[in-house]
Amino acid sequence: MPTYRIDLSWEGTAYCGWQVQPKQRSIQSEVERAVSSLFGGEKITVNAAGRTDAGVHALQQVASFQSQNIREPSQIVRALNSMLPKDIVCLSAFLVSEHFHARTISKSKLYRYRILYRQLPCPFRYNHSWHINYPLQIEQMKEAAALFSGTHDFQAFRANGCSAKTTIRTLFDARLFEKEDELHFEIAGKGFLRHQVRIMLGTLVDVGRGKMQPTDIKRALEKHDRSLAGQTAPSHGLWLVSTSLLDKEDETE
Amino acid sequence: MPTYRIDLSWEGTAYCGWQVQPKQRSIQSEVERAVSSLFGGEKITVNAAGRTDAGVHALQQVASFQSQNIREPSQIVRALNSMLPKDIVCLSAFLVSEHFHARTISKSKLYRYRILYRQLPCPFRYNHSWHINYPLQIEQMKEAAALFSGTHDFQAFRANGCSAKTTIRTLFDARLFEKEDELHFEIAGKGFLRHQVRIMLGTLVDVGRGKMQPTDIKRALEKHDRSLAGQTAPSHGLWLVSTSLLDKEDETE
Repeated sequence: MPTYRIDLSWEGTAYCGWQVQPKQRSIQSEVERAVSSLFGGEKITVNAAGRTDAGVHALQQVASFQSQNIREPSQIVRALNSMLPKDIVCLSAFLVSEHFHARTISKSKLYRYRILYRQLPCPFRYNHSWHINYPLQIEQMKEAAALFSGTHDFQAFRANGCSAKTTIRTLFDARLFEKEDELHFEIAGKGFLRHQVRIMLGTLVDVGRGKMQPTDIKRALEKHDRSLAGQTAPSHGLWLVSTSLLDKEDETE
Repeated sequence: MPTYRIDLSWEGTAYCGWQVQPKQRSIQSEVERAVSSLFGGEKITVNAAGRTDAGVHALQQVASFQSQNIREPSQIVRALNSMLPKDIVCLSAFLVSEHFHARTISKSKLYRYRILYRQLPCPFRYNHSWHINYPLQIEQMKEAAALFSGTHDFQAFRANGCSAKTTIRTLFDARLFEKEDELHFEIAGKGFLRHQVRIMLGTLVDVGRGKMQPTDIKRALEKHDRSLAGQTAPSHGLWLVSTSLLDKEDETE
C-alpha cells in the first residue's frame, strides 16, 4: 500500500499534544483531517515518531501514513499547508517503502528546553519559554546537566501515570548553555519517559537556585525515587527540535 | 502633578490597536486598567507617542500619564507586569517633568515590516510577518524603497479616512534588506499617515512582483493619487521598533 512520510512543525499552544483526545484539539486530529480530505475522504491514521504533551512545540516531527491512493509528494506539502491551521505546517513529504513506520524507524529525538532568563518578561516568547527572573547558578546547572548523559534508570524522572515497561533510557549530549537572554537545555535520546525532560529541567532549575546539589541528581537516579528529583517544568518551554531516523535510504524521494 | 513615562512592548494579535475602541480590546485600555489599579483606582489616561493599528506589534513604545500619587519607577514596572496580560510588557518607568507628554516629545519612530520570503509557511511567525512564496525582484525593491526617503507629499500613500491636516512627511533611512529567510523594510520618521507604512511596503511588493516599476513610486508621490500606489500590506507584518524622544534630559528616573 502506498506509504508516506511527512515532516511536521507546530506551535503547540492551542493543542492538547500530538495524540487524539476526546473533545480536545490535537495535532494528530488536525493532520488526519487534512490528510483524509486530501485523499478523497479516505479514513487515514497518521502515526508520529513520538507523542508530545500539550503546549510542547515541534520544529521537526516525523509522521507516516498509508493510503490506497497515490499523490505527488510536492502536491501533498502544498495541499496540507493550504488546509492545516496556521500553527501546523507540513515541511516535506516522501513516498517511502511499505515497511516505514514513523515510530519504529525513529533513531533519536533531540529536545530543547528554553528558559527566558532575565528580569523582564517578553510579550513574544511567553508561550515559547519558561520565564525565570530569580538568580540561577549557571555553572552548577551545567555540571548537573551533564550527569543525565548515558544509560540510567530514570524512574525518579517520570510522571505519575507513565506506563512505560522499562524506565532505563540512554541519553546523549545532555548540556545546558547560555544563548543571548535564554538558557537552553538540550538532550537527545531514542525515547523518553512521560514528562522526563520537564522533570530533568525542573531539577536543574532547583540546582540553579540552590535547593539541590548536582550530587542529588546522582542520588535520585540511584534510588529511583521521584521525590528525590525536582519540580516539573512547564510544558510551554519544551521544543522537539528534530527526529532522526534509523535508515535514511528507506526514502525514495 | 507627578508625571510618568512608561515604555511598553506588545504582541498586537489580540488587540484592536493602541487606542481605546468601544467593545474591543485595545492596548491602551489594558494599560489604563493596570495603571489605574496600581494607583489605587484613580482614573488615569495613558497617552502614547502614536497610535498603532490592529495586529501591529511594538518592541518599544513610549507612553505617559499623570497621577495624584507617587510610586517608585521600579515598583511600577514590577506591578504593571504582574497585572498586564502576558502579551503586553512594561519595559521601564521614569518619573519625568510635568511637561512631558509622550506624543509631543516624540522625535521619530522606527518601523520595520517583516516579509517571510520562502516557500513554506512558518507556524511560529504567521502573526509576525507577511508570508510571500512567489518570486520577488529584490534589487528592484531595494531601489524603490530608497525613493521614500526625504520630504514628500505622501497623499498617495494614506488610507481612506485618514484625517491628517497635511500629508507632507519627512522620512529617513528607508531601506529594504534580506535577513535570513525574511525581507525587512525599515523606515524612520517623526510621524506617519494612516496605513502609510503598509501601503509603502505593499507598493514595494508590487514592484518586486513586476506589477510596478520604481519610477511608478515617483509618479504616485508627484500625482498625489492613491490609485497610483500599490496594495495595502497586512498589518501583522508591521513592527514599531523604537520611539526616540526630543530631549532625553527631561527624564529624572
